[in-house]
Amino acid sequence: MTQEKRRVLPTREQLRVWRDYIETAEVLRVLLAGRLQSEASLSSGDYQVLLALSEAEHRRLRSSTLASQIGWERSRLSHHLGRMEQRGLVRRAVCADDVHGIDVIMTESGAETFRAATVPHLRAVRELFVDALTDSHLSQVEEVTNALRRHLALEPGN
Amino acid sequence: MTQEKRRVLPTREQLRVWRDYIETAEVLRVLLAGRLQSEASLSSGDYQVLLALSEAEHRRLRSSTLASQIGWERSRLSHHLGRMEQRGLVRRAVCADDVHGIDVIMTESGAETFRAATVPHLRAVRELFVDALTDSHLSQVEEVTNALRRHLALEPGN
Repeated sequence: MTQEKRRVLPTREQLRVWRDYIETAEVLRVLLAGRLQSEASLSSGDYQVLLALSEAEHRRLRSSTLASQIGWERSRLSHHLGRMEQRGLVRRAVCADDVHGIDVIMTESGAETFRAATVPHLRAVRELFVDALTDSHLSQVEEVTNALRRHLALEPGN
Repeated sequence: MTQEKRRVLPTREQLRVWRDYIETAEVLRVLLAGRLQSEASLSSGDYQVLLALSEAEHRRLRSSTLASQIGWERSRLSHHLGRMEQRGLVRRAVCADDVHGIDVIMTESGAETFRAATVPHLRAVRELFVDALTDSHLSQVEEVTNALRRHLALEPGN
């Protein structure tokens, strides 16, 4: 491999590390989603929405804020919220201060479903991720993730 | 938090590391998929299929082997291959040695599309992932990923 190419493309070794990294994260995502569905009848999308609302003041967020917080296109979020509204997990209301804005509010039933899902979900995170790693591994994950987030100009961890 | 709960559930700190880890990997996956689509008109599913075939002997794999190699359900793979076949990227044929088996073969056009996609894709991996990390970071990613893969009983890295 020429010097020029080496500067532009990853080495075989770097590529192997990349492929294992992204594949392993994907396996974890799929396993966690399966547990959430079987243990709490929630999709991982439902859980992301409910988690964001559970952390918001009065369990209420502007839909545009919610979309950017969970990283979804607004049209995808709107379709998803329609289905969650039919199941009684959230409701939508026009903002008091802006006739064009829509607020998303977690219902009491949504809050109850989220609470019931939380312990099984956290247990799955513990079993599949935390139990695999020593404290030193966890510090390494944190350091590397922070480097990636700085590089991608993402918000610092919450 | 009681001693009992601490054993079962992750700590707030462990949970923060987990959320940053899985969210960052997801952001990388979405950014890479966007680059692949805009630079090579391939979905990340197309790329996974073509990558596996490009590494197979005679660019040919049993569809069941391909499904397990990329971690997809067989029905999902079958639908996806139908669309790739229409675009001339792959073709399917009955196995010579087993009337019930189907082989998937990368066409010359598929191989050409894959070759054209490879350099832009590797450049994106370099820019978004490798450039963010020092050599020491890369070793940390490798160590942590290996610990996760052992825990999840995944095959060792390829």
